[in-house]
Amino acid sequence: MTRDEVDAFLEREFPQVHHGGRTYFIEEVGPMSARLRMAYHERHIRPGGTLSGPSIMALAELALYVAILAQIGPVALAVTTNLSFNFLRKPAQRDLIAECRLLKLGKRLAVGEVAMRSDGESDIACHATGTYSLPDRR
Amino acid sequence: MTRDEVDAFLEREFPQVHHGGRTYFIEEVGPMSARLRMAYHERHIRPGGTLSGPSIMALAELALYVAILAQIGPVALAVTTNLSFNFLRKPAQRDLIAECRLLKLGKRLAVGEVAMRSDGESDIACHATGTYSLPDRR
Amino acid sequence: MTRDEVDAFLEREFPQVHHGGRTYFIEEVGPMSARLRMAYHERHIRPGGTLSGPSIMALAELALYVAILAQIGPVALAVTTNLSFNFLRKPAQRDLIAECRLLKLGKRLAVGEVAMRSDGESDIACHATGTYSLPDRR
Amino acid sequence: MTRDEVDAFLEREFPQVHHGGRTYFIEEVGPMSARLRMAYHERHIRPGGTLSGPSIMALAELALYVAILAQIGPVALAVTTNLSFNFLRKPAQRDLIAECRLLKLGKRLAVGEVAMRSDGESDIACHATGTYSLPDRR
Repeated sequence: MTRDEVDAFLEREFPQVHHGGRTYFIEEVGPMSARLRMAYHERHIRPGGTLSGPSIMALAELALYVAILAQIGPVALAVTTNLSFNFLRKPAQRDLIAECRLLKLGKRLAVGEVAMRSDGESDIACHATGTYSLPDRR
Repeated sequence: MTRDEVDAFLEREFPQVHHGGRTYFIEEVGPMSARLRMAYHERHIRPGGTLSGPSIMALAELALYVAILAQIGPVALAVTTNLSFNFLRKPAQRDLIAECRLLKLGKRLAVGEVAMRSDGESDIACHATGTYSLPDRR
Repeated sequence: MTRDEVDAFLEREFPQVHHGGRTYFIEEVGPMSARLRMAYHERHIRPGGTLSGPSIMALAELALYVAILAQIGPVALAVTTNLSFNFLRKPAQRDLIAECRLLKLGKRLAVGEVAMRSDGESDIACHATGTYSLPDRR
Repeated sequence: MTRDEVDAFLEREFPQVHHGGRTYFIEEVGPMSARLRMAYHERHIRPGGTLSGPSIMALAELALYVAILAQIGPVALAVTTNLSFNFLRKPAQRDLIAECRLLKLGKRLAVGEVAMRSDGESDIACHATGTYSLPDRR
């Protein structure tokens, strides 16, 4: 699927991702990869201007799902089985960019990693790895 | 700290946890442990009535933080360094209960595990482990 | 499978686990659980008398495999897909006991946790969670 | 430290890594990175010619340690606090190459990732992330 097709699929199947105003944006999908942006929005902010852990984790989970959808097509039934996060640095007070790379796309399991950086920075703020269980395909 | 003290501390320091209406409740704190409840609320729900991954991950992160606060007192500066989740079963369409147990409370690091079950069930829906880095104490 | 059946199966299929003299012992298998012992042996020791990380990780992986075998029977083809370890304390200079509990035994995936303690101690030295991918069964 | 200095330090402080004949080799250290090789050796092999999980995990742990030593100098006291592995593909019947990249080198914690591939292949056989707790430095 192209970027726009993934976007339309998510809006149709998971409208509540954008509940309260859209803050997650797909910037690009490629072979075994995806880049997403999370807008710096009061909903994601904790005291001191830092981004909340759950908003960062939601970005990573979504980035993995987008990268998988782009490869295997509209499969609502892929489910996360494992997610693991290393929080490395306090993110800056701006958008957070997630670069996802699939490490494996097997028949049953897809595994990927996500590096999240504050927009314009090179240091990784949070690194995630995750596994999705894929439905049987024909 | 007692349950009520932790509750008051969180409301003062992290009011946005309850943004949109309180859905996370501390039920009990004990030695090296805590039990929390996440109310089944439309904000946390995905199509088909299932709970969203991020709402479950937020519950686990909060349960760990509550268990640590109860042990070491009001320390706003503890930061999550690692969180790891195994999603085992689709949770039922009701409240989710988190039982947190600290496995280690060291000078620098606290490590714990969280078992999350649908209210009234014995099977674990999601299991998490996490590490917090603790500020220097005197 | 009983404890002795699992033991015989491992010796037949994975004799190299005991390469250099047997140091891993199955103490008990039960419903969704297993207990193993790793003998304190010079092969596993690092300077200062501590146990090596890899010997501890090997014990955890084996404990999960034993618990799964006891449930589903002799299936050489189960493969580890994910293992995650929190090293909590330096183990004492004696045997290490692993208590494994399966959290899920699905059609495709088995997930469990392993708590490892020095013999006779209550504090956990290392905590692991792991996932095995199971072959199709009939 | 240079490659040779790290090598000499490990041989002096952790001779048992090479117990039974040297199979782990440091190929290169660089800024925040290291590359190691594990020789295909009967000691690491399981039935069917596959490499054992513990030998792969040992390689990852060592690669992280080497990358940290190269940055901070001879510190025997760094200890692993967390290691997480995704086993993606059965490695081929030859040497395994580990590429380690440090994602963070803080005052207290170092975090890195390790991609392990069969020699000459581009697909990752196992991906690891790990955290070391660092001793106080002056």
